[in-house]
Amino acid sequence: MQDPAHATGTILTIDLDAVAANYRLLSETAAGAECAGVVKADGYGLGAIPVVRALAAAGCRTFFVAHLGEALAIRDAAPEATIAVLNGAAPGAEAEFAEHRLLPVLNSLQAIAAWAAQGTEDGTRLPAILHIDTGMSRLGLSDTELDRVADDPALLDGIEIKWLMSHLAVAEEPAHPLNAEQHARFEAARARLPSAPTSLANSSGIFLGPDYRYDLVRPGAALYGVNPQPSAANAMKHVVRLEAPILQLRSIDSPRTVGYGATHRVTGVSKIATIPVGYADGYLRSLSGRGHAFLGGHKVPLVGRVSMDLITLDVTGVPDTVAHPGAMVELICERYTVDAIGADAGTMGYEILTSLGARYARRYVGGGA
Amino acid sequence: MQDPAHATGTILTIDLDAVAANYRLLSETAAGAECAGVVKADGYGLGAIPVVRALAAAGCRTFFVAHLGEALAIRDAAPEATIAVLNGAAPGAEAEFAEHRLLPVLNSLQAIAAWAAQGTEDGTRLPAILHIDTGMSRLGLSDTELDRVADDPALLDGIEIKWLMSHLAVAEEPAHPLNAEQHARFEAARARLPSAPTSLANSSGIFLGPDYRYDLVRPGAALYGVNPQPSAANAMKHVVRLEAPILQLRSIDSPRTVGYGATHRVTGVSKIATIPVGYADGYLRSLSGRGHAFLGGHKVPLVGRVSMDLITLDVTGVPDTVAHPGAMVELICERYTVDAIGADAGTMGYEILTSLGARYARRYVGGGA
Repeated sequence: MQDPAHATGTILTIDLDAVAANYRLLSETAAGAECAGVVKADGYGLGAIPVVRALAAAGCRTFFVAHLGEALAIRDAAPEATIAVLNGAAPGAEAEFAEHRLLPVLNSLQAIAAWAAQGTEDGTRLPAILHIDTGMSRLGLSDTELDRVADDPALLDGIEIKWLMSHLAVAEEPAHPLNAEQHARFEAARARLPSAPTSLANSSGIFLGPDYRYDLVRPGAALYGVNPQPSAANAMKHVVRLEAPILQLRSIDSPRTVGYGATHRVTGVSKIATIPVGYADGYLRSLSGRGHAFLGGHKVPLVGRVSMDLITLDVTGVPDTVAHPGAMVELICERYTVDAIGADAGTMGYEILTSLGARYARRYVGGGA
Repeated sequence: MQDPAHATGTILTIDLDAVAANYRLLSETAAGAECAGVVKADGYGLGAIPVVRALAAAGCRTFFVAHLGEALAIRDAAPEATIAVLNGAAPGAEAEFAEHRLLPVLNSLQAIAAWAAQGTEDGTRLPAILHIDTGMSRLGLSDTELDRVADDPALLDGIEIKWLMSHLAVAEEPAHPLNAEQHARFEAARARLPSAPTSLANSSGIFLGPDYRYDLVRPGAALYGVNPQPSAANAMKHVVRLEAPILQLRSIDSPRTVGYGATHRVTGVSKIATIPVGYADGYLRSLSGRGHAFLGGHKVPLVGRVSMDLITLDVTGVPDTVAHPGAMVELICERYTVDAIGADAGTMGYEILTSLGARYARRYVGGGA
């Protein structure tokens, strides 16, 4: 663990046992399907290497990242694992993929041709994942491109299709008609292509039922504590805890404004606590005047604007025995989850996770850490 | 420079000559005052070490950071410089401050006592900055604490007050009455304390006129291209450029939705370009459906939601000779500045800078780089 004094006392605790428990729960829910781990964006902000080690120890043997650089960063942490790169290979990077035994996700005809050519050069059929777009309109073969491959399967001759995949757009809303549409399009596509194992579900997709699970499920957010079923209680274990000390406690007895823009005015007798965490730490500025924290069991509101390195909390109602300089405040905890903070910030838990800053002293617990 | 292929082709270019030019302009504007460089939050997201080297080469000899860890990170890059830590020393960290010749900003009576004790232990008067709160209600001596020190200046006996400082809350609004109030409070405070050099102005404060400049000005954001005078044209040079390739180009000729939540529906014939940058890279999710980019001189709107690793742009009006896979799109540039993106995201340029992600291939130009 880094020295908390270097971060003015702020501590980000990441519970790797909770990550492993979430993996096991998702894996059991997915029943016969293999359960991969999505660890892009530095393991959703939690640190890709410790997360990969914990997931591998829990039985995970397939990992997904977005970029080649992210795959290379975790290769040593999971030397035997399958590592897939969702963005595929940038033109010219195919040899580096092959050298490090990485699976590109093939999103286009150009990518298919380039990967087949790499296989020819290497004298082998190289494995890959073939991505069919069924409703994200983002990555993956379009309808026209699918027609081309279906009409000429020889395009895939040099490639071992390890999985045929697609990606759901609204899986967290089970009643949304697009889920069934995407499922139907995926079924139609795979009927037209050479037989291969299949993968469709992200975290929320696992809970849409057995029809959506296929051979491989690909949870990300739920591993890190985000609720994959927003309309139900969260079955995932809480993973992240952020604590920071009261850096300064200020009693105000005459009218004063707090923070930039003078947006918050204190009128009565008040106590304001300043905490060394700000938007440069991923405590989003949109939480200004909207977030809260917990101090010794007391819920305390954030007042004024979030600064780059500091926030201010109104701790007026908290006794001085609890609210004093050095007392630790909980900013992310089981009572104020990443989902709840995301909602207060006008976004969602995913962005709270991936924004977690680099300045905190990070403490990993569990997972053999 | 990192290999752009590892970042699926995304390139963040940081112009250190522009940082140096901004430093010189601010320094000239501040006339007789020394001009420090605020490099907290990893040099506002641009990389503290290259920024410190460029500023030092431009003549800067005093740097401000927020945390001890940030000061230690730049010590070797500016071995002779004065480095001040705005949050001060966490209790017990005073010896480490002294060992590395760091200046704590003393925000409270406890901090004053602890630093004086460190000086006694080291047998010397250690330098520090004394911070008086004049209207931020965040850090610095409160009115009551100021009274205590003014009544008993011996509290400061063991300390060399290198600067007496305060911090402005609304400097970017010259007509706001709080500026004059803070100035008056600062004047009143310094009249009651032992004589020492003084510092009040941040980037925008420099432009409030000579009365606000005192002995040391402390610009941060303006060094990195943020406009310190939002009501006027920006005199600062543009520092940051973010480019990313079209990863996939999709022609859509039947009604389809784009992205998560199916929030954007394409009705006519359209071309959608997918770009490998998302909110995990600090391209804030609040830009969903609101941001834009430039492709070969064409302004192209962001459509649908910002994903973790991807965004989608509507490039329907752009000729195929310009809009093709691999073509580079400008996401941050002189025509779409961090200030403009911040406004579109419902925040400000500062947060765009400090959120700049770790996955981009970073290229430093100028500054002897």
